[in-house]
Amino acid sequence: MTLPSGYRYASTYAGIRKAKKDDLSLVVSDTPASAAAVFTRNIVKAAPVVLGAKHLAASKGKLQAILINAGNANCATRTGAEVASATCEALAARLGIAAKHVLPSSTGVIGVELDPALIVNAIPALCERLSADRFHDVAEAIMTTDLVPKTSFAEAGVKRGTVRIAGMTKGSGMIHPNMATMLGYIVTDAALPPAAVSAILQDAVEASFNRISVDGDMSTNDTLVLMANGASGVKVGDKDLPVIADAVTKVAQHLAEQIARDGEGASRLITINVSGARTEADAARIARAIANSPLVKTAVAGSDPNWGRILCAAGYSGAKFDPRKVDIALQGVTVCASGLAAEYDEAALKAKLAQKDCLIDFRIHGKGRAQCRFWTCDLTEGYIRINGSYRT
Amino acid sequence: MTLPSGYRYASTYAGIRKAKKDDLSLVVSDTPASAAAVFTRNIVKAAPVVLGAKHLAASKGKLQAILINAGNANCATRTGAEVASATCEALAARLGIAAKHVLPSSTGVIGVELDPALIVNAIPALCERLSADRFHDVAEAIMTTDLVPKTSFAEAGVKRGTVRIAGMTKGSGMIHPNMATMLGYIVTDAALPPAAVSAILQDAVEASFNRISVDGDMSTNDTLVLMANGASGVKVGDKDLPVIADAVTKVAQHLAEQIARDGEGASRLITINVSGARTEADAARIARAIANSPLVKTAVAGSDPNWGRILCAAGYSGAKFDPRKVDIALQGVTVCASGLAAEYDEAALKAKLAQKDCLIDFRIHGKGRAQCRFWTCDLTEGYIRINGSYRT
Repeated sequence: MTLPSGYRYASTYAGIRKAKKDDLSLVVSDTPASAAAVFTRNIVKAAPVVLGAKHLAASKGKLQAILINAGNANCATRTGAEVASATCEALAARLGIAAKHVLPSSTGVIGVELDPALIVNAIPALCERLSADRFHDVAEAIMTTDLVPKTSFAEAGVKRGTVRIAGMTKGSGMIHPNMATMLGYIVTDAALPPAAVSAILQDAVEASFNRISVDGDMSTNDTLVLMANGASGVKVGDKDLPVIADAVTKVAQHLAEQIARDGEGASRLITINVSGARTEADAARIARAIANSPLVKTAVAGSDPNWGRILCAAGYSGAKFDPRKVDIALQGVTVCASGLAAEYDEAALKAKLAQKDCLIDFRIHGKGRAQCRFWTCDLTEGYIRINGSYRT
Repeated sequence: MTLPSGYRYASTYAGIRKAKKDDLSLVVSDTPASAAAVFTRNIVKAAPVVLGAKHLAASKGKLQAILINAGNANCATRTGAEVASATCEALAARLGIAAKHVLPSSTGVIGVELDPALIVNAIPALCERLSADRFHDVAEAIMTTDLVPKTSFAEAGVKRGTVRIAGMTKGSGMIHPNMATMLGYIVTDAALPPAAVSAILQDAVEASFNRISVDGDMSTNDTLVLMANGASGVKVGDKDLPVIADAVTKVAQHLAEQIARDGEGASRLITINVSGARTEADAARIARAIANSPLVKTAVAGSDPNWGRILCAAGYSGAKFDPRKVDIALQGVTVCASGLAAEYDEAALKAKLAQKDCLIDFRIHGKGRAQCRFWTCDLTEGYIRINGSYRT
């Protein structure tokens, strides 16, 4: 698929992480783009999150570059704010743009001072590498414990032509609902005002990154950015907005799903469909409780159709429902009907549960009509191995 | 230590669980005892929880026997209510007491029909085994994935003599704050009215079982019972109540701590002390978020002094605090001062972190005075192994 027009990308190794793998990346729009971002709601915020929000406010929703480093979160350090400012300024000077048009992003360990010289010294080489075809290099350079780069692409056919959307994300631990992922960047060549970019991003996040959970933890650095530079040259009318919003949401959902699938140590993507809840909030509560339950996640890892754990998690979610009106299906096989064990072929179901994707349907049959789709992953010994020795 | 007077205990193998290990137990008071219970707040409640609450209401806080089975939760089954009733009635008839003076308790798998005949047929042999010295037999027979039986004993010196307290508990997964543990029974030979028993139990639970977390899951069967039969013959005045309450709380805390230490797959008990919070609710929020964070728990398992994860968990807890006023100490060694990395000897700390007990101090230095002590365990590959294959 063709990438959106008017963007260039670059990555290089600046020496921030120990492993010699690109750790500094850049996304640049040829012109200032309308932009919006969703940041972590953790009260402990990394310096780049604070500065990024400040820049977006100062520029009234315009960005021209995103400067991203992996290997250090630039959070809870003495010099974090200065490092974020100095690196944005160095990049802005090199590109000849305003510093407020640069959004900084960091991911990695918390509480370790980040040497700004590593980034500042690497900026010239980084800018020299800028190229329209290095999108995937950036998707790889922003990875930490991710096993695979995560990208998604879409086209939206509007009245006067076609606009393009491309997204990338990283994150496989510390993923929690109601937050953007660790880091995610979506760019489009549609011409949109900042207010429309902001509205489209909010809706997309609600249906995607706010509907995934890996381990219930929530990062200090979570950032999701949407940029729209208009380089397609296609005029966009108000009636085109829903089409573009829909395409952006699909990209965001696809990215979010990839994060859940690549959850640390995960062997399976779990999709949870809740239906028949009284309210959307209740549907989300039930889905989230199931998604966050270590007992459900380990059962899926063990191909164990333990629906009692699913019903139990829903029961403590805070949502109101009658357990006697609940049907639960795994891989399309009803294992619990009206809150009781259903008859099913256990050997056949076990075989289905060994597949890569696991589908949990939680249906309440009553008057409720609200539903929610949620993604998570199973919990395996691999998660423990990864997180027991990440820092040292 | 001498057990409380006027209680007898028994256990036997009734064939409920596959492994041939006692699975049916009985605690009997010689006379109807004042009693209170705290049950799960999961809206999916097991049949014995529903019936136990009903019996306590009908008897106005009097119990004479507790009938406990392991191997089947008697939850989410067609016949659950009838099974709970029939087994209580069979026991009551055999003991010559009222059925409303029997509290049923079950633990095990959810959603599998429990054959009441297994219990009813075993009741005569069970009652024949009743003996004042079989307290530990019951503590062993109620275990499921527990590695060790959990008991605690205390004496309270009141004005006119000494009363005794003995407690037992089981539970190592599905442990969550704001809930009683899976199953816990505390008996005393103090003479107390039902209202005093209820008040003492509530306070004890708040400072113990509501302050532990293993995996954030919350059972359908959680039950904690306190019985007081007055068999000590010691008269208790109003001024003695705080002394007795204190002793019961100590027993409850000791039991709760043992549950955290025996958390499924746990290699370490983690004690979390939060101080300087604005309110007690905020102190508990911070402690609970740290205790529930898989990233913190895996870091402790790996002896990794990753304080950034601790600060981060507190940051998303919902509590309000200034991250720049936070000190964090591990094993008494300050690793974070005023929200920033502190200087410490990493090798020495690593060695201290390899000890069986881990102490996390989270201190906010400001105007707040509220504090909370919380217990949890580390998260290891063992947890995954246990829970990936529990049912099948």
